[in-house]
Amino acid sequence: MTAGLSRIESPTTVLGPGDDAAVISAPDGRVVASTDLLLEHRHFRRDWSTANDIGHKAAARNFADIAAMGAQPTSLLVGLAAPAETELSWVDGLVAGFAEECAEVGAQVVGGDISASAEILLSVTALGDLAGRAPVTLSGARAGQVVAVTGLLGWAAAGFAVLSRGFRSPVQVVNAHRRPQPPYAEGIRAAEAGATSMTDISDGLIADLGHIAAGSGVRIDLRADALAAPAKLRDVASALNVDPMSWVLGGGDDYGLVATFPTFAATPAGWTVIGMVSEGEGVRVDGLRYADGGHEHFR
Amino acid sequence: MTAGLSRIESPTTVLGPGDDAAVISAPDGRVVASTDLLLEHRHFRRDWSTANDIGHKAAARNFADIAAMGAQPTSLLVGLAAPAETELSWVDGLVAGFAEECAEVGAQVVGGDISASAEILLSVTALGDLAGRAPVTLSGARAGQVVAVTGLLGWAAAGFAVLSRGFRSPVQVVNAHRRPQPPYAEGIRAAEAGATSMTDISDGLIADLGHIAAGSGVRIDLRADALAAPAKLRDVASALNVDPMSWVLGGGDDYGLVATFPTFAATPAGWTVIGMVSEGEGVRVDGLRYADGGHEHFR
Repeated sequence: MTAGLSRIESPTTVLGPGDDAAVISAPDGRVVASTDLLLEHRHFRRDWSTANDIGHKAAARNFADIAAMGAQPTSLLVGLAAPAETELSWVDGLVAGFAEECAEVGAQVVGGDISASAEILLSVTALGDLAGRAPVTLSGARAGQVVAVTGLLGWAAAGFAVLSRGFRSPVQVVNAHRRPQPPYAEGIRAAEAGATSMTDISDGLIADLGHIAAGSGVRIDLRADALAAPAKLRDVASALNVDPMSWVLGGGDDYGLVATFPTFAATPAGWTVIGMVSEGEGVRVDGLRYADGGHEHFR
Repeated sequence: MTAGLSRIESPTTVLGPGDDAAVISAPDGRVVASTDLLLEHRHFRRDWSTANDIGHKAAARNFADIAAMGAQPTSLLVGLAAPAETELSWVDGLVAGFAEECAEVGAQVVGGDISASAEILLSVTALGDLAGRAPVTLSGARAGQVVAVTGLLGWAAAGFAVLSRGFRSPVQVVNAHRRPQPPYAEGIRAAEAGATSMTDISDGLIADLGHIAAGSGVRIDLRADALAAPAKLRDVASALNVDPMSWVLGGGDDYGLVATFPTFAATPAGWTVIGMVSEGEGVRVDGLRYADGGHEHFR
C-alpha cells in the first residue's frame, strides 16, 4: 500500500509508511488498538459503493471502536489484497477515502501492506490515544445508571434494505449505508463526563447493548418511545413494508455510540437517554426481550 | 477471534481481547506498528504447514518487522476469515501458534476479528516498544560503514523448493520454511550497538539490502565468500540441481536481520560481516549486480 502514501511527519506520526514498521507517538504511555478484516461481497460491494466510500467506511468502523473506548484515533494501518486487474483509479479512490476519514478525525495512515488475491480484501488496524483517561469498557455499567445513545440509529440498515431491493434512493439512507459518520468526538466527551461503559453500534443497538449487559453483569431496559424512528425512516420503512423499529433496534453500520452514565444529569448534551440499568441480565424493550438482538421480531 | 483468547493482564497489556479495542502500555511514549495480510495458497498452504506452524509464522513475520526497527514486540492483533466448514481444531491450532510465538518474544495477543470467507485469510498487526531508543530505519547507512547479517539465509527457500517438488525432507530446511525463527533479540542488540540501518530479510538478502541502499542513497558491496552456503544447504541444492547461492542471496522467509554498523568493531557478536557501504547505488556481490534481487542469475 505504498500507492498514494508518502512519509508524513506529524504530532502523532514519528515515522510514517515506507520502513519495516511505523512509529507513532503515544504520549499517554498507552495505546488503544482495534483491527478488522473486510471482504468484498460480505462487507462491501463495489456496485453499491465507490472506492472512496469503501475507504471512508473501513476507516470509520475502526475509528468508532477507538472512540468507543473514550480515545482519540491517531493512526491507521491498512492491508489491501486485490486482483491484478483492479484499476489503479479504484485503489487511488480507496487510499483517498482512508486518508480523508483520517483527516476528519485527526489521524493519519502510517503503514500498510499490499498483496494479490482473487477478491478484494481489506485489513484495517486503528490506533488511538487516551490522553490520560481510563478506557471506557463494556464492564462498568451498574444498576441505577442511565443508558444513552448518540448518532444515527437504523439509517444504514434502511440504506442497505433500499439497495438490496435494487433502489438507489432516498439518498439520505443510501448515503448513511455508504458513508457512515460516527460521532467520534462524543466518545471523548462521554469519557470526560464519566461514562461507566460504552460501545459503538456496529451489530445493532440491542446486540451491542447485549455486550454491555453481559460484560457488566447487568440488565438493560430500553423505552421504545425514546427510540421512535424519525419521519424519514418511517417513510422508507412504509414504502418497503418493514417495521422501522427493526432498523432502529437491529441495524448496525451507523457506528453511533451507546453508553451508560452515573446519572441523568451526567449525560452530556447531544446524547439521548433511552433506558436504565438494573440488576439481572439481558436487554429488554418496554419489558420484552428482542429476539437474537438484531432480527425482526420480538418474542 | 475470541476462540482460545481470554483477557490477559500483563506489564504491556492493559486491556486484552473482548472489548471494542485493546489497550497496550507504551512506556516509551511511542509505539512501533506493522501489518500484514496473508492469503491461503499465496502465503501459506494447509497441506504443507500445520495450523500451528501458520500461526507461528504469521506472528514471526510481523515481529521480525518490529525487531528490525530495534524494538521489542509487545502485542499482536489478529484477523481471521475462514470458510464455515473450517475445523475448530484447525482454528485452535492457529490461535495456539500465535500465542506460542508471542510467548517466545514476550508479547501477547491482545485483540482480533473473525469473519467468514471462501478461503482462509489472516491479517496480523504487531506492536512494539523502543524503550527510549531511536528507531533503526532504512535510511541511515553511510559510505564506509559495514554490512552484517544474523539468522539463517536461504534455509526457508530451500525448504520451499523441497516442498514444491513433493518432498518432505530434509527436515531442517522444511522446518525452516514452516516455522522460521527470527533472531528477535538481535534487533535490540544491533540498535544498542549503534546500527545505522536495519531490515528483516523477508524478500531475500539482495532485495532487502536494496531497500537500505535506496533508502540511504548508498551502494552496498557484498563478498560472496562471506556468504558461502553451509554444507547442509549445499547438499540439498546439489540434490535439486540448484545453485545454493540463489537461496542465500534471493531467499526470503527466514526473517534474519541485516544491518549496517559504523565500524567492524561496533558489530555485535552473533553478527557476520558480509560487506561494506560506499557511495553510489544498488547492491553488488563481488562487484556484480544480482538480477532482480531475488532471482537465480547474476547479470
